[in-house]
Amino acid sequence: MVADPERLTRYECFRNLTVEQRKAIAETAEEVCFYQDHTLFKEGAAGETLFLLHSGEVQILYNIGEGGPAQVDTVSGNEVLGCSVLIEPFTYTSTARALTQSEALALDAAQLRVLMEQDCSLGYSIQKRLMQMLLDRITDLRLGS
Amino acid sequence: MVADPERLTRYECFRNLTVEQRKAIAETAEEVCFYQDHTLFKEGAAGETLFLLHSGEVQILYNIGEGGPAQVDTVSGNEVLGCSVLIEPFTYTSTARALTQSEALALDAAQLRVLMEQDCSLGYSIQKRLMQMLLDRITDLRLGS
Repeated sequence: MVADPERLTRYECFRNLTVEQRKAIAETAEEVCFYQDHTLFKEGAAGETLFLLHSGEVQILYNIGEGGPAQVDTVSGNEVLGCSVLIEPFTYTSTARALTQSEALALDAAQLRVLMEQDCSLGYSIQKRLMQMLLDRITDLRLGS
Repeated sequence: MVADPERLTRYECFRNLTVEQRKAIAETAEEVCFYQDHTLFKEGAAGETLFLLHSGEVQILYNIGEGGPAQVDTVSGNEVLGCSVLIEPFTYTSTARALTQSEALALDAAQLRVLMEQDCSLGYSIQKRLMQMLLDRITDLRLGS
């Protein structure tokens, strides 16, 4: 099922796109629902899906040294998960697991990457917001939060 | 003095641009030289210049908690310094100080941002590499290196 393009306006990285551009992205999207404890993606795996969370709570974990993955964050509400699927080498840099039943739009990362390459105004606009998110994460990591 | 556009090919984020695009960027650049202990930019200041280092060694410092800036890295060789001038809100997120006499190309950040907005293929190409650099930095910070 193709998603409603207007749903994308809930997420800042798609907000400055044209209606046509959002339509093209929505063609790559499908509604998904996760039960508690379901793993959305695993650190190090090939980045196949970008998740646009819209309900539920998801735990983000990283492998830090030995001893397996540690929880570093929980996200809920209208959040984008798995941004690294849009950055070479296109692998997940964290693990995401549903803490509660959750709903999201699942965007096909390979198709989205093709859209970004073919239409640089679309690519540029999405990247611009992703860069802000990455810079915010760097600031948080530095401050140890 | 306008810089030689071919100089930009030393830096990965400008390597995939066309000759014309590199020419346009070179128009915003000038050669600069720093003495030891000179501060290239300060954390929190408005991002006016992107530096393309080509000789010398530069210390990167961040304010972490109280007690003033701490050295977190030293860079040398063909490195790009001050990437955050291309990411909203366009301020420096670190302080850079010359550890030795150093030479760089200084790119006017405001002009570069205009070029990126006007020519999205140029903007997309530069951002693509910047995102990789940011993601690498996040990995390093996580691993505590």
